[in-house]
Amino acid sequence: MTGTPAPELDVVQWFNTQGPLTLAALRGKVVVLHAFQMLCPGCVQSGLPQAKRIAAIFPASEVAVIGLHTVFEHHEAMTPVSLAAFVHEYRIGFPVAVDRPGENGPIPRTMAAYGMRGTPSLVLIDRAGNIRHHGFGAEDDLKAGAEIALLIAEACKNG
Amino acid sequence: MTGTPAPELDVVQWFNTQGPLTLAALRGKVVVLHAFQMLCPGCVQSGLPQAKRIAAIFPASEVAVIGLHTVFEHHEAMTPVSLAAFVHEYRIGFPVAVDRPGENGPIPRTMAAYGMRGTPSLVLIDRAGNIRHHGFGAEDDLKAGAEIALLIAEACKNG
Amino acid sequence: MTGTPAPELDVVQWFNTQGPLTLAALRGKVVVLHAFQMLCPGCVQSGLPQAKRIAAIFPASEVAVIGLHTVFEHHEAMTPVSLAAFVHEYRIGFPVAVDRPGENGPIPRTMAAYGMRGTPSLVLIDRAGNIRHHGFGAEDDLKAGAEIALLIAEACKNG
Amino acid sequence: MTGTPAPELDVVQWFNTQGPLTLAALRGKVVVLHAFQMLCPGCVQSGLPQAKRIAAIFPASEVAVIGLHTVFEHHEAMTPVSLAAFVHEYRIGFPVAVDRPGENGPIPRTMAAYGMRGTPSLVLIDRAGNIRHHGFGAEDDLKAGAEIALLIAEACKNG
Repeated sequence: MTGTPAPELDVVQWFNTQGPLTLAALRGKVVVLHAFQMLCPGCVQSGLPQAKRIAAIFPASEVAVIGLHTVFEHHEAMTPVSLAAFVHEYRIGFPVAVDRPGENGPIPRTMAAYGMRGTPSLVLIDRAGNIRHHGFGAEDDLKAGAEIALLIAEACKNG
Repeated sequence: MTGTPAPELDVVQWFNTQGPLTLAALRGKVVVLHAFQMLCPGCVQSGLPQAKRIAAIFPASEVAVIGLHTVFEHHEAMTPVSLAAFVHEYRIGFPVAVDRPGENGPIPRTMAAYGMRGTPSLVLIDRAGNIRHHGFGAEDDLKAGAEIALLIAEACKNG
Repeated sequence: MTGTPAPELDVVQWFNTQGPLTLAALRGKVVVLHAFQMLCPGCVQSGLPQAKRIAAIFPASEVAVIGLHTVFEHHEAMTPVSLAAFVHEYRIGFPVAVDRPGENGPIPRTMAAYGMRGTPSLVLIDRAGNIRHHGFGAEDDLKAGAEIALLIAEACKNG
Repeated sequence: MTGTPAPELDVVQWFNTQGPLTLAALRGKVVVLHAFQMLCPGCVQSGLPQAKRIAAIFPASEVAVIGLHTVFEHHEAMTPVSLAAFVHEYRIGFPVAVDRPGENGPIPRTMAAYGMRGTPSLVLIDRAGNIRHHGFGAEDDLKAGAEIALLIAEACKNG
């Protein structure tokens, strides 16, 4: 889906925000969308720590890091009440949204709209709202840093 | 409490067993009791991986590794249904018991009986049923290996 | 020294090249100069593995990774013959130069010309031959990846 | 060679001791003999850190940790003068001996006498001077801790 407009988030709840966020309102910033499940070992060991590093290193004025809790299995085990404790215990400081459950199956809405294959997934959205990176599994920090920097740099062209 | 008889487990549910286990029935084996909470980062990062290594290295005929889910905070976030998914996703193969909720407070029964200060806690119980090690926090593998080996070796004296 | 022209390398020997390299001849590429000592634990544990990752991830047509062996202590312990074995055993595949010994002190010539404070040091040189980053100690992969990417992107402006 | 008497060390130089050590003089203690080469990545990454942990955890009155520099390749790169700097830079505090060069080949004397296959090698010698463990490659801390503890415990039998 790289190069196409990023589907709007379709979520039911937010943590670490004062109100709901939308990609539309974030237009102008680079958005780092990190999709995870709280009981996914790869997310806990590599994806979420990387998302935290990204949020710590890149200025919030340029880059918005958003966690997306895309539960597609063990739904009853990863309800929002469990996620709230997880976000607290793992000291996740960036906004986290709960993907809206699917109507006819286990895959939640935003996950389906993005065609994600599982968790962790990392999606980079440029300042104009287009998907520029869409990856599944552990991502290299050097590569991720390079890609985010190039999207930030595009400001010069568009500004 | 080192040197005193290990209180019997007071639990409500078991995973990875065909039926309930008791310390009484395990008498004659060294018991490695690893107390954890599924949303405790120190348990996920160091305590549980160590318990898995202990279970992999020491013979099951000599050493029984038991996980004890001692929920003392975020109770509604770490119910048995969430624990079941956690045990599956983190590939925990040894028996895991759910500590019985406390009557008058957040501390569950077995955790209280052992006077545990938090999670992760590691308790080593000798073949005669006495507590020989009672530690809180990350434990060194060299030390843990040494202590378990000495308890196994006591077989020679008692046999 | 950031922003100033990068001093030419003043070295006595090369490994992993068919002949001597010069910054002048590399003009047009981004140069990642990694200064190290083979017996510096921080270089072995973080600096050199990062340099290898940079060489693996960024295309050689855009980025030249160069190791610079800047011996400023234990000179007799880190001679070129020892370095040759080190380069072999640690599977370092990028070009490595041996900094020329200083005339009147322990600091070798190129290290002095760059004003490096110790090892590991990471210097990023842009396509026009100017120093754009000059850091001492372990460097974050996200940041390093971002900085290298931005220097690569400058091709568009200059090209 | 497990179970047989440990050959005496045949070495040319010592670091971190006031004079030469011999296994004969160490009889009564458990000896942890860690054979390494200073340019062996597996030794630097796993073997030597483990030896340092062993020296830190077990009491010196019971366990003697000895490093043995068994150079069997790149001899000219790993001379004692280079080893001296390595021992200093890597903060190795336990005694380190330099194995005596072989007469008719690259394998040094003590390495040959023990039949070591390479580095790192870990040899455990009991209080009576017999080899009780002889391993090549990275060793698990839990296992090593268990084996050392059992050898320490043999004091009770012999004392």
